[in-house]
Amino acid sequence: MKLVLVGFGNLGRGLARTLILKRRTLRSSYGINPRVVAAVDEYGAAVDERGLDLRKLLQVAEKKGSAADYPRKGKKGRSAADVIENVEADVVFELTPTNIRTGEPGLTHLQKAMRAGRHVITSNKGPLVVAFPELDRLARRSGVEFRYSASVGGAVPVIGLARKLLAGNEVRAVRGVLNGTTNYILSRMSKEGTPFDVVLREAQEMGIAEKDPTLDIEGIDAACKITILANALLDRNAKLKDVDVTGISRIKPEVTRLAQETGNAVKLIGVAERDILEVAPKLVPIGHPLAVGGTLNAITLETDLAREISITGFGAGPWETSSALVGDLIDIHRTLGA
Amino acid sequence: MKLVLVGFGNLGRGLARTLILKRRTLRSSYGINPRVVAAVDEYGAAVDERGLDLRKLLQVAEKKGSAADYPRKGKKGRSAADVIENVEADVVFELTPTNIRTGEPGLTHLQKAMRAGRHVITSNKGPLVVAFPELDRLARRSGVEFRYSASVGGAVPVIGLARKLLAGNEVRAVRGVLNGTTNYILSRMSKEGTPFDVVLREAQEMGIAEKDPTLDIEGIDAACKITILANALLDRNAKLKDVDVTGISRIKPEVTRLAQETGNAVKLIGVAERDILEVAPKLVPIGHPLAVGGTLNAITLETDLAREISITGFGAGPWETSSALVGDLIDIHRTLGA
Repeated sequence: MKLVLVGFGNLGRGLARTLILKRRTLRSSYGINPRVVAAVDEYGAAVDERGLDLRKLLQVAEKKGSAADYPRKGKKGRSAADVIENVEADVVFELTPTNIRTGEPGLTHLQKAMRAGRHVITSNKGPLVVAFPELDRLARRSGVEFRYSASVGGAVPVIGLARKLLAGNEVRAVRGVLNGTTNYILSRMSKEGTPFDVVLREAQEMGIAEKDPTLDIEGIDAACKITILANALLDRNAKLKDVDVTGISRIKPEVTRLAQETGNAVKLIGVAERDILEVAPKLVPIGHPLAVGGTLNAITLETDLAREISITGFGAGPWETSSALVGDLIDIHRTLGA
Repeated sequence: MKLVLVGFGNLGRGLARTLILKRRTLRSSYGINPRVVAAVDEYGAAVDERGLDLRKLLQVAEKKGSAADYPRKGKKGRSAADVIENVEADVVFELTPTNIRTGEPGLTHLQKAMRAGRHVITSNKGPLVVAFPELDRLARRSGVEFRYSASVGGAVPVIGLARKLLAGNEVRAVRGVLNGTTNYILSRMSKEGTPFDVVLREAQEMGIAEKDPTLDIEGIDAACKITILANALLDRNAKLKDVDVTGISRIKPEVTRLAQETGNAVKLIGVAERDILEVAPKLVPIGHPLAVGGTLNAITLETDLAREISITGFGAGPWETSSALVGDLIDIHRTLGA
């Protein structure tokens, strides 16, 4: 399979490393021979239709900062749009940073790739919260596969869980701890009674929270993810603006401590039901599958036969995200083989 | 698809009800038209190659106690072996009670069905802990599909999670709370400080524990399930006798209370790694995905890319088990379509 990687930062490089690590498994267990024919970032592209040398590509990108410095076959200034449309490929991975207002540049990349007849796999929440219904329609019309497991929950395969493993069940509601940063902050506040500001500062020092933590602590990131899940699993046509959002920045340590004393944990929960779409702090009984600590993500699917099924794991990190990206690749290969 | 149901107790009847409930979904979403051509229990069989009327079959079985009382087409004394071998079918569901020493009668049923070229789906732990490697080989040699999701974790699709959704990952270890009865007892002991005997008696009154609770409280049921998971997910050739088992009957309420005071829960954990196969009470930190309460089951897969992924849900009950059985049916249909 010929692959194009659009975006060659942390996630693109993590995927390249994973493809090196898993080359043998992909071939022997799944009959997939992945060949990365292009990697493009904001500075330019490396292109080789016979397949790039991924080790060399990683070395160059680490050292010089861009895939475009790939020897001979790299070209500064060659754009993602050009590569997507003109380099023959089976699958385009869209791995650029998320912009939740415009969805760009990911949105344009996905549209161009679909129109060019490429299957697409993305980790980018932006296009999904801005234009999911449009993208879903375009994929169908173009006859291409469209996968976005990595956009929600990192390594946690919640979309596949609902669609593949709970086939036969009707999913009635989705509830989840969808943001690792806020979960870490709330877990520490509740364990130690430390105030929000102090824990946030420490989380920033540890690299768990970003310098500008707004998207996480105000619940926007979780709102993006519950939007994606509502569309994917409940057939809604939701956009980010449809979500009622309350963050965690005004939660006092007394509240988390009191919750704990009564056998509960305060968690930032995203909820999607037929008529509900919200993110807000809620009490969860200790012992409930959503009462997970640390930076974990957890999602509960409420279904008719299986009742509540929950899935838990790490929602971020390049290896974890690669697990979802490679899972989507294998799934597309299986689907096409059918 | 022509189906044969071997065993028509709680699980067989639950499956029949689910097939009625899901007839439309199975047809429209998956193109499956399930036709139950035979249902057999210890008294005899109901057989109709054009498909039994499932509502009538359920009525008769509830009222008279056996599928063999199905009007006209029912026949007392017709054996499971006879039905499996001589009634033309695509899939045989083996749903008889578990015998962990001999695996019978399930083992013979599965062997006969495979040799007759039927795909098989079972919820029966007995044959799997007595003869998994042999059954796995026989299925391959016979060219039939062999599914047993319902034998571990009820509705919790842990085998599919590892095989399908974490494709690309290597599973290195499996740890789990695999028995709902003991989890309920331990959760209540830890919450209320009530002694084991008292909680057990109440659990028996509520129908959560059986009259003879030995298999649950001594860890045997959990040992069966970790054996099945070790074979299915770690490519081991384990049998029940290979598991080191310690139950929960000697756990004092002081221990559960002390654990809780230090931020832990006592859980009966099954562990399968390359060189470990055991069931024993262990401390799990509160906030860890295995620290779930009530009658829940939870399983953590330790993998190379996704790190730890956990899945949680209800491990028993006819609807929950049906969710797994129907999931396996859909999966076989998908596989054969491929």
